[in-house]
Amino acid sequence: MNLAPSPRGAALRDRVAAFFANRILPRHWEWLGAVAAGPGTPALARSLREEARAAGLWNLALPSALPNLDFAPLAENMGRLPWASEVFNCHAPDVPNMIMLEHAATADQRRRFLDPLLDGRVRSCFAMTEPAVASSDARNISASIRADGDSWVVDGRKWYITGAAHPDCAFAIVVGVSRPDAPRDGRHSCVIVPMNAPGVRVVRTQRFLGWDDHVAPIAELVFDSVRVPRENLLGEEGGGFRAAQVRLGPARLHHCMRTLGACEVLIELMLARASERRAFDRALVDYDSTQVAIARSRIEIEQARLLVLRAASALDTAGHAGAWREVAMIKVAVPEMAQRVADRALQLFGAMGGSDDTPIHHTYAMARLLRIADGPDEVHLRQVFRTEPPPSRSLEESPYLGAPASARE
Amino acid sequence: MNLAPSPRGAALRDRVAAFFANRILPRHWEWLGAVAAGPGTPALARSLREEARAAGLWNLALPSALPNLDFAPLAENMGRLPWASEVFNCHAPDVPNMIMLEHAATADQRRRFLDPLLDGRVRSCFAMTEPAVASSDARNISASIRADGDSWVVDGRKWYITGAAHPDCAFAIVVGVSRPDAPRDGRHSCVIVPMNAPGVRVVRTQRFLGWDDHVAPIAELVFDSVRVPRENLLGEEGGGFRAAQVRLGPARLHHCMRTLGACEVLIELMLARASERRAFDRALVDYDSTQVAIARSRIEIEQARLLVLRAASALDTAGHAGAWREVAMIKVAVPEMAQRVADRALQLFGAMGGSDDTPIHHTYAMARLLRIADGPDEVHLRQVFRTEPPPSRSLEESPYLGAPASARE
Amino acid sequence: MNLAPSPRGAALRDRVAAFFANRILPRHWEWLGAVAAGPGTPALARSLREEARAAGLWNLALPSALPNLDFAPLAENMGRLPWASEVFNCHAPDVPNMIMLEHAATADQRRRFLDPLLDGRVRSCFAMTEPAVASSDARNISASIRADGDSWVVDGRKWYITGAAHPDCAFAIVVGVSRPDAPRDGRHSCVIVPMNAPGVRVVRTQRFLGWDDHVAPIAELVFDSVRVPRENLLGEEGGGFRAAQVRLGPARLHHCMRTLGACEVLIELMLARASERRAFDRALVDYDSTQVAIARSRIEIEQARLLVLRAASALDTAGHAGAWREVAMIKVAVPEMAQRVADRALQLFGAMGGSDDTPIHHTYAMARLLRIADGPDEVHLRQVFRTEPPPSRSLEESPYLGAPASARE
Amino acid sequence: MNLAPSPRGAALRDRVAAFFANRILPRHWEWLGAVAAGPGTPALARSLREEARAAGLWNLALPSALPNLDFAPLAENMGRLPWASEVFNCHAPDVPNMIMLEHAATADQRRRFLDPLLDGRVRSCFAMTEPAVASSDARNISASIRADGDSWVVDGRKWYITGAAHPDCAFAIVVGVSRPDAPRDGRHSCVIVPMNAPGVRVVRTQRFLGWDDHVAPIAELVFDSVRVPRENLLGEEGGGFRAAQVRLGPARLHHCMRTLGACEVLIELMLARASERRAFDRALVDYDSTQVAIARSRIEIEQARLLVLRAASALDTAGHAGAWREVAMIKVAVPEMAQRVADRALQLFGAMGGSDDTPIHHTYAMARLLRIADGPDEVHLRQVFRTEPPPSRSLEESPYLGAPASARE
Repeated sequence: MNLAPSPRGAALRDRVAAFFANRILPRHWEWLGAVAAGPGTPALARSLREEARAAGLWNLALPSALPNLDFAPLAENMGRLPWASEVFNCHAPDVPNMIMLEHAATADQRRRFLDPLLDGRVRSCFAMTEPAVASSDARNISASIRADGDSWVVDGRKWYITGAAHPDCAFAIVVGVSRPDAPRDGRHSCVIVPMNAPGVRVVRTQRFLGWDDHVAPIAELVFDSVRVPRENLLGEEGGGFRAAQVRLGPARLHHCMRTLGACEVLIELMLARASERRAFDRALVDYDSTQVAIARSRIEIEQARLLVLRAASALDTAGHAGAWREVAMIKVAVPEMAQRVADRALQLFGAMGGSDDTPIHHTYAMARLLRIADGPDEVHLRQVFRTEPPPSRSLEESPYLGAPASARE
Repeated sequence: MNLAPSPRGAALRDRVAAFFANRILPRHWEWLGAVAAGPGTPALARSLREEARAAGLWNLALPSALPNLDFAPLAENMGRLPWASEVFNCHAPDVPNMIMLEHAATADQRRRFLDPLLDGRVRSCFAMTEPAVASSDARNISASIRADGDSWVVDGRKWYITGAAHPDCAFAIVVGVSRPDAPRDGRHSCVIVPMNAPGVRVVRTQRFLGWDDHVAPIAELVFDSVRVPRENLLGEEGGGFRAAQVRLGPARLHHCMRTLGACEVLIELMLARASERRAFDRALVDYDSTQVAIARSRIEIEQARLLVLRAASALDTAGHAGAWREVAMIKVAVPEMAQRVADRALQLFGAMGGSDDTPIHHTYAMARLLRIADGPDEVHLRQVFRTEPPPSRSLEESPYLGAPASARE
Repeated sequence: MNLAPSPRGAALRDRVAAFFANRILPRHWEWLGAVAAGPGTPALARSLREEARAAGLWNLALPSALPNLDFAPLAENMGRLPWASEVFNCHAPDVPNMIMLEHAATADQRRRFLDPLLDGRVRSCFAMTEPAVASSDARNISASIRADGDSWVVDGRKWYITGAAHPDCAFAIVVGVSRPDAPRDGRHSCVIVPMNAPGVRVVRTQRFLGWDDHVAPIAELVFDSVRVPRENLLGEEGGGFRAAQVRLGPARLHHCMRTLGACEVLIELMLARASERRAFDRALVDYDSTQVAIARSRIEIEQARLLVLRAASALDTAGHAGAWREVAMIKVAVPEMAQRVADRALQLFGAMGGSDDTPIHHTYAMARLLRIADGPDEVHLRQVFRTEPPPSRSLEESPYLGAPASARE
Repeated sequence: MNLAPSPRGAALRDRVAAFFANRILPRHWEWLGAVAAGPGTPALARSLREEARAAGLWNLALPSALPNLDFAPLAENMGRLPWASEVFNCHAPDVPNMIMLEHAATADQRRRFLDPLLDGRVRSCFAMTEPAVASSDARNISASIRADGDSWVVDGRKWYITGAAHPDCAFAIVVGVSRPDAPRDGRHSCVIVPMNAPGVRVVRTQRFLGWDDHVAPIAELVFDSVRVPRENLLGEEGGGFRAAQVRLGPARLHHCMRTLGACEVLIELMLARASERRAFDRALVDYDSTQVAIARSRIEIEQARLLVLRAASALDTAGHAGAWREVAMIKVAVPEMAQRVADRALQLFGAMGGSDDTPIHHTYAMARLLRIADGPDEVHLRQVFRTEPPPSRSLEESPYLGAPASARE
């Protein structure tokens, strides 16, 4: 179990780190000002995207470009700011969508939908969750995808669709029921729906715990008798979940990696705050509970990172099915860890910690959202449980118990 | 220790409950729409305030009007919606300011500042916390209040000042240093500063974890050589903390009472959600972890409420000094409890739980803010610790230990 | 809701406190030495029992003698030492058994079994839990009670039977199946079985987390074709749970009350330890995390006590059915609280905290056992959940949500 | 960062696993019976030790024999039973003592003390902690080691000395003050004291949370004018802590490794119990809170193991100083994890979980002790905190904050 990056990975890690430190981080205030002014990718980010692309630091989140284990430190670095991934075209949900298209798209679909994404010309979204059903059990999804002549007709309401409110969002991959009478696992299909198709409507933007995602702004969508050509089916009919499967592992993995970077920023800020701020004639850093808050955060981050690296390695070597359990574990462990770290940081910063002046609110909201998005904790915990091997012997036969009842007297 | 309301209190409780259920709650959506449109108390709330006043349900938060123990159930009911307290003129920070003015104001000050507040004609704020110092230790406050001829000249920057961004905010009670050379506990004074005095500037509004307080919108203020007449000194010179003391107990108590009401709403919503929503062929309510989430919330709420009632009773009977320890305990226990309850509710509601469609975000943010506002948990925990009686005997002498070292062999 | 004791209760509380402080506590080391020497009530405790009885401080745990609310402070005081309740004949499981006998015993049974208990001449046990089934669901109990001529024939294995290993234990109240074909809630009966009946065997003594209960030593029992006369049926045939019901509330309540006293002792010891012990040139008491540990313990104890008092009051005024929910809440809240308090105390005492030289091990084990005994947390949490009122309206209709889906656009 | 064992390590791991499964585990009940009968290594363990030695599975815990990373899976396997390490001569405190002697002993000392340990002929202990001072700050140690002619004279009281109560314990390495007037870090020395030297007295055996350590039974010792020859000084005079340093890393590491194995056993037992036991007409395994308890345990164990492996690797490659931070992190993370796992297992097993019939009590007590032994959590958390790099820039300069105060308006 080697969790270190390859030489190529290490070199890319260092180049991304330098690009981040020299080109992105110094312009963060500028970016904050720009996104406050209105939606869409600000000009400064667009220009940095050109730079990153020219430097060869582009699309590295694709497993076809770089193994997940090698991408991990890059992703963590990008996670230090909410918009750095976008600069490298490594942001969600476009990357998971690209991976899905790489696997399932026809040549024509690749040309029409994948290439512009790889090229960074457009944005996309993945429209699965619905307000009316528990999306934690994806088989509940109820949007309708009905064949009608040369078209699919899509009807339904989707919400909390990340990226759908971005002005450049060109298409949605929509999950819905195309075979209502099939067995439950074979009812759903995916179709690609251009956002400008008649009947597609962005009902409203959405935020989570008061946090607006500027990179992939969230929206509620209505699909009202939307017609798309039959060739927009992505993957097989009735095989919607199979087609989507391939995007889940990397999506969850990348979120967890980025979250680690966001937590490292909070550690850095906590250390500075605790050194500078004084109360009752002592620096906060001289209170042992401050030290404990930082030390616990450190220990939890280190453990979480190792688990993430192992999951990345598993995805590289064992594929989606083989890494399922590993991914489920990080999906639970990392966001809970980040919520705790953010909570400690918030307490240390006082009111400022909940203000818009620090990244704490962002990390808090992102961590909290991740405990729900892509399947709530409950689903992943159940998954971890189910992949435990069944007990190999009864309690009565266990040599670890003091004595079998029959032998006890 | 009787924690039940008096007959008068019980009657008022029922009347407030009826007013809330019949007049306020049905208009909540309307209110949400109105505050989204812009700052200030919406017309519908103004009209309800008239009604409440006409009904004699006005200013009941003042201990001079109703004992704290009697007010507790009223406050809890008001806390079910973020704007109900305002309808009854029982909202912060005006109530604590009224209490402070009742104690410390001159007859002239009462006429100019207290009466309009009691009357509901204006709003006020209490400007203590500063961005540059740890306000958890109030003696750090550094704004300057300098005597100059007939005037006080106020200079400083204050932030997270609740209510300061309300368009009706007429004056601020400002805490600052007027005697820089006095012993540390006698340096600070309070002066009343009209918001329209030259040099007072609202730099920006502020929010906490993305939550905008519509009833008492938060602001950062700058006081730049602001002149107010000498008679605007509130309380004695150098006695700023003593004057402010009287507002702290009720302020904390009322926040805790309201928080209980907000938590009861979450219980109600969790029960409904868990009954209606299904995942993996079972209603959420049939998952035992859902039942545990709700049951734990119930147990924690009940314990917290009893502690709040006891603190209210202590404030009524023992006064500020006598209730200090009790208030410190609820100040720690209630917001932490509410944060846990809100976190469970959020998880149960999924993405919707973090959206703006439920009160969860509001309760979460309010609870989290209360762990910081009016002194962070750390200060109150220390207070609780310090009011433990010192050990009456050494360990060596304790009869509870197995044996003294000297007798052990 | 008056949670204060009556004048009579207050007077008894003070007399018990004085008796405890003057007569019992000073002899604790002596008691520790005596019980280390062998099983049974030591002579010193027997003699103190005579004293307490002569002083009228006897059997006060019986609701027929003193309301639960009045008994609460007495029980808390007794809980400060593991053996003080026994001195006042207020110990488990004899008190719950006395209560059960008071309700369900025939005149003859009262004479033969209740009177000697009240008199303190004998001990008893309540034999319900079995190793082979989950006793959390009492309907699983499988011991057999078969009618045969003038006798009941009892067969089965019981374990974790508190008090059964006491040399003075004269009889067991045994729960078993007498009507195997009846509906599940009507199968079980209770019979009184003298411990010296042929076929009753104490298989072994048992301890919990290494802790031996010297007052009511725990045992595993086998009943092997044990014959008792038909008149030993306690309550109605098939009404075993109904008959036992009446003992549950007081049993749980008294355990919780005593636990509060044990926690108060830990607070006292923590304060002394933290004042005396130094590490890294500072007294432990000057570390803020020490202060936090003590302050949190205090806050949790206060909340728990209020809940216990309310449950006591509910049992007094609303009876068993009416207090069911209240009792379930304290059964969860108090042991968990005590486990946390004991864990903090242990950490503060270092290795000594886990040794036999402090009461921490006792409190830890008792608290941990209480999370299982008399129904595990899970059962009581479910109970609390089930007694929440059902939602009065659907989410769609809730005025607390931002907007109904239908109105949202 | 390769965390996999070497081929040699993997082969040894498999051989130890087979030996454990075939030779040790089947005799666990026999061992339990033997140690219940009296102190000392039972004959069956002695005979297995001969077997293990003959098989070359002996002394593999020594870093001089096998890198820590390779030993990790062996240690974890041994940790599945409390006595398996002893079979392989890999038990504490003998292994840390051997490591210390390997580093610091003279040729004569190696012959007299190290060789018999390596040979498994005798046992040893490390006598540092004292009842009267906080040993968390080792500089508090106050036993006296006074030079007198050709001898050292040792006086003091030590307690919680692991292994000291073993009948084969031949010598103690005693830490005490030999230069009372030296600077605080140079006062202490180590001397080797034969247990049969006049003046050495085992005052009593000790247990922790009711758990007796049969392999290395704990004792309180008194040294009363004990004379040992000058050549029994271990390491340099005044360099006691330096000499002892080398034993700390492996001691902590091995404890953590073994703890992982003990937790794996609990997972196995929980799975069996949850499958077999039913309550309220459902198997416990069908309650989602049971699944959550097991899944959380799994996730925590996996994270902890990765951290342990990294610490092992750090100790192998960076030595004691270089691995200090890594070791501090596992010393906090692993015992806390194990305490949670044991607590969940206990709850799932009900009363049986706290009995002597399962290994839960052992794991619980061991985990809880580890949070104190070899430095309490507090010391290691502080260590982790202190090894964080200092903040590289002030908050004012941090590009991660929204805006510098100066730019804010």
